[in-house]
Amino acid sequence: MINFADRLVTAVRSKSSPCIVGLDPRLESIPEFITGCRYTLPVNDAITSCITQFHELVLDAISELVPAVKLQIAFYERYGLPGLAAFGHTIRAAKDRGLLVIVDAKRNDIASTAEAYADEFLGMTEVFGAMRPVYDVDCLTVSPFLGRDSLAPFIDACHLYGKGIFVLVKTSNPGSADIQDELLLETGRPCYEKLAKYVDELGAGDWGNSGYSSVGAVVGATFPEEATTLRKLMPRAIILVPGYGAQGGTAVSAANCFNDDGLGAVVNASRSITYSYSDRRISKADLESEVRQNTLRMNHDIRTTLAARFGVRR
Amino acid sequence: MINFADRLVTAVRSKSSPCIVGLDPRLESIPEFITGCRYTLPVNDAITSCITQFHELVLDAISELVPAVKLQIAFYERYGLPGLAAFGHTIRAAKDRGLLVIVDAKRNDIASTAEAYADEFLGMTEVFGAMRPVYDVDCLTVSPFLGRDSLAPFIDACHLYGKGIFVLVKTSNPGSADIQDELLLETGRPCYEKLAKYVDELGAGDWGNSGYSSVGAVVGATFPEEATTLRKLMPRAIILVPGYGAQGGTAVSAANCFNDDGLGAVVNASRSITYSYSDRRISKADLESEVRQNTLRMNHDIRTTLAARFGVRR
Repeated sequence: MINFADRLVTAVRSKSSPCIVGLDPRLESIPEFITGCRYTLPVNDAITSCITQFHELVLDAISELVPAVKLQIAFYERYGLPGLAAFGHTIRAAKDRGLLVIVDAKRNDIASTAEAYADEFLGMTEVFGAMRPVYDVDCLTVSPFLGRDSLAPFIDACHLYGKGIFVLVKTSNPGSADIQDELLLETGRPCYEKLAKYVDELGAGDWGNSGYSSVGAVVGATFPEEATTLRKLMPRAIILVPGYGAQGGTAVSAANCFNDDGLGAVVNASRSITYSYSDRRISKADLESEVRQNTLRMNHDIRTTLAARFGVRR
Repeated sequence: MINFADRLVTAVRSKSSPCIVGLDPRLESIPEFITGCRYTLPVNDAITSCITQFHELVLDAISELVPAVKLQIAFYERYGLPGLAAFGHTIRAAKDRGLLVIVDAKRNDIASTAEAYADEFLGMTEVFGAMRPVYDVDCLTVSPFLGRDSLAPFIDACHLYGKGIFVLVKTSNPGSADIQDELLLETGRPCYEKLAKYVDELGAGDWGNSGYSSVGAVVGATFPEEATTLRKLMPRAIILVPGYGAQGGTAVSAANCFNDDGLGAVVNASRSITYSYSDRRISKADLESEVRQNTLRMNHDIRTTLAARFGVRR
């Protein structure tokens, strides 16, 4: 079984891109040539069909350009079972196109409950004596709030199934200061530095041939100084960088999350790739072109910034 | 619209019980007279049917005895769409029996993603221009790790729809020490005390006629000393107390989460109520009796402990 970090690094190299496209279905923003199906289908079928069709088009436009997609599960869950049916279809469509699939769910719980989440996303569930996969994606975001024991079932699943996790360390929102930035009495340093040390420890010994661990971290592109510190504290962790684009993070900020080898991070953009048009009457051809151009522009932005910083052109 | 805290306090009084029964479906533990349907139904239908039937029986046994149930969503999600279909059925079955429904999902995300979760569990989702409820439960557990801005959409939903949240403050697991117990440089006090102050502030002004807020907190029964401190720091918050029973928390420990009025907390037990039998060949009548007896025993244990402590008999 190939280590998740190795699979991600290989995909980044083969696509010459560390960019990730985020999929967060918002029916009210999906083009009308897709949502028109609501006039002919029952509403629940229309929900599933609209989200799946939209994402298949996005995936067709980007599958040659990026190594992975990140599905934000909250936006699927918001549509109930029809939304989660589309979640399953979108995962399969992404895998069919050779993309790695990251689920952004920020799950966190204790003991057997954490195991249940690990089974759901990374492993398999026992059903009437037989083991069966549920979503079976490549990687999941998790929160460390409940402590290291709450992460153990996910790490076990990573080892057993060749999967990965990204642990929240410093998130991209202003309120991340409330807990993550708190200075600790023990060290005089912010809480996020302690979290980075946990990530480094939890991933120890699990390095693939790439030298990277399957226990990664989330560090927002909106906090470039913190990123510089965090990059050094967990040198073997792949950093998932949200906040580029719509949230105001730049390529220069995101570059602080990379190592000197020009690797070690993947940068996500969601709305700025898939919802950049303001007119929902956009045609299919124009949608595909827009999504593709947005992705090419992001690839170029990140690549040239990394080349300037690290002198490598991947 | 009646404030959630008032609805919960009224239900606690009318049932003379602050006990909550936790529902976490584990097919491998459900009695055979229910799981036998796997021989006649397609596997996905059997999953939905087994979980729904089991919980209907549990709900019939307990609905007169407790004010609310807590559904642990991870155990439903682990079975994919058929599991979540059973989640929806179980919520409706609990409401039909007059029980309040708490979902234990520990969700946490930022901005529009947090709004999506709030829509899913507490509010409504816009679908093709119309608003529709998804799960529409009474209360949700949320994590504060991403900061106060990440909780705002949930609090807005509480106000708009008369719902409640329980914010994780000090969880019942050993690893809760890792972050929640960290002493902060600013105060020299543990992180969980700062979280309790957030809970107190976020609930300010939202007190119902009961004097309690719809912004509650989670404090594990496994940490009685911390509970005593936390109870004082957020006097208006209702505390959801996990960890009683299977996790080793006692009624005496849990009592530290209550106020002197004998109110202000609800105590959850899951496995010790619904999976106390070791032989899955248990009959329907014995299952109902066992679940009922377990609940009566817990009610008695908590009630007599509170009566001894506070001199009230509710």
